[in-house]
Amino acid sequence: MPDPAPALARRLLAELVGTGLLVAVVIGSGIAAQELSPQDTGLQLLQNSITTVFGLGVLILVFGPVSGAHFNPVVSAVDWVLGRRHGTGLSGSDVLGYAAAQIIGGIAGAVLANLMFDLPALQISDTGRTGLGLWVGEVVATAGLIAVIVALARTGRASLSAAAVASWIGAAYWFTSSTSFANPAVTLSRMFSDTFAGIQPSSVPAFVLAQILGAVVGAVLVTALYPDAPAAAGSVVVPAEATPHRPSDRSRS
Amino acid sequence: MPDPAPALARRLLAELVGTGLLVAVVIGSGIAAQELSPQDTGLQLLQNSITTVFGLGVLILVFGPVSGAHFNPVVSAVDWVLGRRHGTGLSGSDVLGYAAAQIIGGIAGAVLANLMFDLPALQISDTGRTGLGLWVGEVVATAGLIAVIVALARTGRASLSAAAVASWIGAAYWFTSSTSFANPAVTLSRMFSDTFAGIQPSSVPAFVLAQILGAVVGAVLVTALYPDAPAAAGSVVVPAEATPHRPSDRSRS
Amino acid sequence: MPDPAPALARRLLAELVGTGLLVAVVIGSGIAAQELSPQDTGLQLLQNSITTVFGLGVLILVFGPVSGAHFNPVVSAVDWVLGRRHGTGLSGSDVLGYAAAQIIGGIAGAVLANLMFDLPALQISDTGRTGLGLWVGEVVATAGLIAVIVALARTGRASLSAAAVASWIGAAYWFTSSTSFANPAVTLSRMFSDTFAGIQPSSVPAFVLAQILGAVVGAVLVTALYPDAPAAAGSVVVPAEATPHRPSDRSRS
Amino acid sequence: MPDPAPALARRLLAELVGTGLLVAVVIGSGIAAQELSPQDTGLQLLQNSITTVFGLGVLILVFGPVSGAHFNPVVSAVDWVLGRRHGTGLSGSDVLGYAAAQIIGGIAGAVLANLMFDLPALQISDTGRTGLGLWVGEVVATAGLIAVIVALARTGRASLSAAAVASWIGAAYWFTSSTSFANPAVTLSRMFSDTFAGIQPSSVPAFVLAQILGAVVGAVLVTALYPDAPAAAGSVVVPAEATPHRPSDRSRS
Repeated sequence: MPDPAPALARRLLAELVGTGLLVAVVIGSGIAAQELSPQDTGLQLLQNSITTVFGLGVLILVFGPVSGAHFNPVVSAVDWVLGRRHGTGLSGSDVLGYAAAQIIGGIAGAVLANLMFDLPALQISDTGRTGLGLWVGEVVATAGLIAVIVALARTGRASLSAAAVASWIGAAYWFTSSTSFANPAVTLSRMFSDTFAGIQPSSVPAFVLAQILGAVVGAVLVTALYPDAPAAAGSVVVPAEATPHRPSDRSRS
Repeated sequence: MPDPAPALARRLLAELVGTGLLVAVVIGSGIAAQELSPQDTGLQLLQNSITTVFGLGVLILVFGPVSGAHFNPVVSAVDWVLGRRHGTGLSGSDVLGYAAAQIIGGIAGAVLANLMFDLPALQISDTGRTGLGLWVGEVVATAGLIAVIVALARTGRASLSAAAVASWIGAAYWFTSSTSFANPAVTLSRMFSDTFAGIQPSSVPAFVLAQILGAVVGAVLVTALYPDAPAAAGSVVVPAEATPHRPSDRSRS
Repeated sequence: MPDPAPALARRLLAELVGTGLLVAVVIGSGIAAQELSPQDTGLQLLQNSITTVFGLGVLILVFGPVSGAHFNPVVSAVDWVLGRRHGTGLSGSDVLGYAAAQIIGGIAGAVLANLMFDLPALQISDTGRTGLGLWVGEVVATAGLIAVIVALARTGRASLSAAAVASWIGAAYWFTSSTSFANPAVTLSRMFSDTFAGIQPSSVPAFVLAQILGAVVGAVLVTALYPDAPAAAGSVVVPAEATPHRPSDRSRS
Repeated sequence: MPDPAPALARRLLAELVGTGLLVAVVIGSGIAAQELSPQDTGLQLLQNSITTVFGLGVLILVFGPVSGAHFNPVVSAVDWVLGRRHGTGLSGSDVLGYAAAQIIGGIAGAVLANLMFDLPALQISDTGRTGLGLWVGEVVATAGLIAVIVALARTGRASLSAAAVASWIGAAYWFTSSTSFANPAVTLSRMFSDTFAGIQPSSVPAFVLAQILGAVVGAVLVTALYPDAPAAAGSVVVPAEATPHRPSDRSRS
């Protein structure tokens, strides 16, 4: 009988590498934008946001069938909370493992971005991001993210998640004042790059609190809109269409 | 036996929140663009239009299975008019409810955008938008919007509506002189933001008239192109592929 | 028994309106780009090309099930030539009708764009576009266009035509030196706008010749790559997935 | 009984023309960007990267059903290595043929781009691209490319390869410091254009070595994530959904 341990290890590997690459995409493109278009901050954000749309969408496609491609502790937590009703979704201990993998991977991704652009590998951002407007922005961005993911899962359209999640984040870079971090693991990782995409440590706690609040708002909203979730839809938040390995992994872990 | 009231309430909630987020996307990204790229209005419109494409497409995916994701009184009205032949589509009173939810939600979205960017919550635009060229632009943009939605519904391709509607609006931001408001609820809401995306109240009536005229032109055109609508296609204008909740909602309301 | 005449009329209406809107998209967005970003021609072309991708893709979706959404005389001609083997595709007289509708519609679209932007309705471009490099560009752009359309039709993936054709033209705006007119009807129409997207009459004949040559190159290439076209694939060049009206239209005309 | 030779010839034709057009897209759009937006290098890279996304995606759609649309020797090599287990994939001699066609086609594409823009047909770049950061960038970009292709093939989603591969390259233009060549054939070809996209010959060997290393990293990663590849998934790396000609070609060659 197969050992479930490798399966969970593989899922944690997917979350670690996927979140790492996501952070490298966000920070790396921010550095490139800052270097190549020094005279227009809006053009930098356009370059940064378009890159994130392309990169995040692909990463969800690549890692989704293995781990769900959460790359985000609040997404994993919502998967756990909403899935408990049907005994599906991540377990509480899975969420801790996912979150650890996401944070470790994300910080490694920041270091990778620094190395690629010949910057000091370890650095701390001093970009302050604070204020009520920004926090409201994080609430809106995270609530929308959760609503997108759960709405697609509950209507059998999870195969659209890659494009939809990437598009939402791309839009929220612009229409929220906070440029839509919407992800505690990515927020923590962005402390470690003193560049365009960075955030200083003292700004992080309020951002994370706003993200948690946003996740709650999003979960309440989407539950009001789609109250009768099919049992199957609760088990994975961002699954892929074809998941030859996933079902057995899940039933064992 | 289930009570139909929550079903209609859920649909109105979807139209309210969806239109609110759409307006927040349009106005919020306009504010960000204006702040970040102050020297090139075209670059601002590019940022604004790309954000709208991403945001609108996602919002249609999220809210479509609940309410049809109209977000637009003329779309709801066309759904009612074209659906009457088969006894499908929205009822006349549904259209009033939809329009009220869209307008209330839209204005709330304008306020939300103002709050996110630390601007006064309540403000009135003084951006005049008037002239024959602009009105022709609104007619073209709205006619095209109606044609896209109905053509896809009548050919069984409504699952493409999210991408197609978003793309049409994104194109019409540029190729019409009016930057394609194409939506009376969004037009009214944009009065409440004295920023890049605003429109002063005195310019609104002519815009709305042009949009109504455009909807008529679009409905006539698409009826000429696709005269034999299947009965099923008349019932919803922007449905989603998988709609576990929708059929019963509709038959009850 | 139904009268075939309306069916052909409907197809010609689709080609006329579709080509008109395509030209309005191309010229209108060029005018807006020129007005809003006067200091950077590359930024103007970026705005123009992104708008064309969004607009052309949607127009193919809307008009495809009626007429094939050719919008382009060389596409119609290739449909006729390649379809003769199986007795499918357009007839020779259909091609003449299509071309007439495309040209008339295209010119009307140029006038519409001028009107929307409060420019003189009738004008002639004085933008010279001539030289071997540009002509090679038109050959490459048109050959690729034909290859994309026929390859997708011959492999049963015509539902991807809207996105693929739009993407090809968007790329060819940039990587060919001619900015990829690739369409005799659109080329003729662009004579009638003395703006960013215009072309002076004396430059048109060589462009059209290059486009015809490109169509031949594309047809030869795609026939070498996909020699065994299924009979069904020859009948329409840009069909849609769901075409309730099309089959009967075609068999009657 | 049919002769297998034309089948292989057709596949090599597809790789030759496809890689040629890919290089023309990359170099041609770089030249146009440099000419049209001379004042902002970041804007040039944005134009170059968006064009590449559109162009590469279409080329994969067009040539995929014939040859797999590798356009890249390391992709062909990975197809061979990973496919050996099931006796599927390219043979070793196929890989040599593919690589030769890719390199010849790519260089011809560079010449074509030069001709379209009225530049000397033959030229050698003197743009140095060297340093640890850039090499790490090439490793990351190529590893990701391989992971995307193989992950989609192993989960039965190869029809998403066109969009996913194009999006990955578009993102990697920005988030890696090397602007993501990620392809030895394209790297060699870009020596032959002394323009925006060029690379001087002395910088090429290290780039190619980094790409080979990246391919190994990507293959190891994706094998760890998706260990149990179905036999069918090993046979082609970038297949198309509908491949009427392919199966017989492959079984004979």
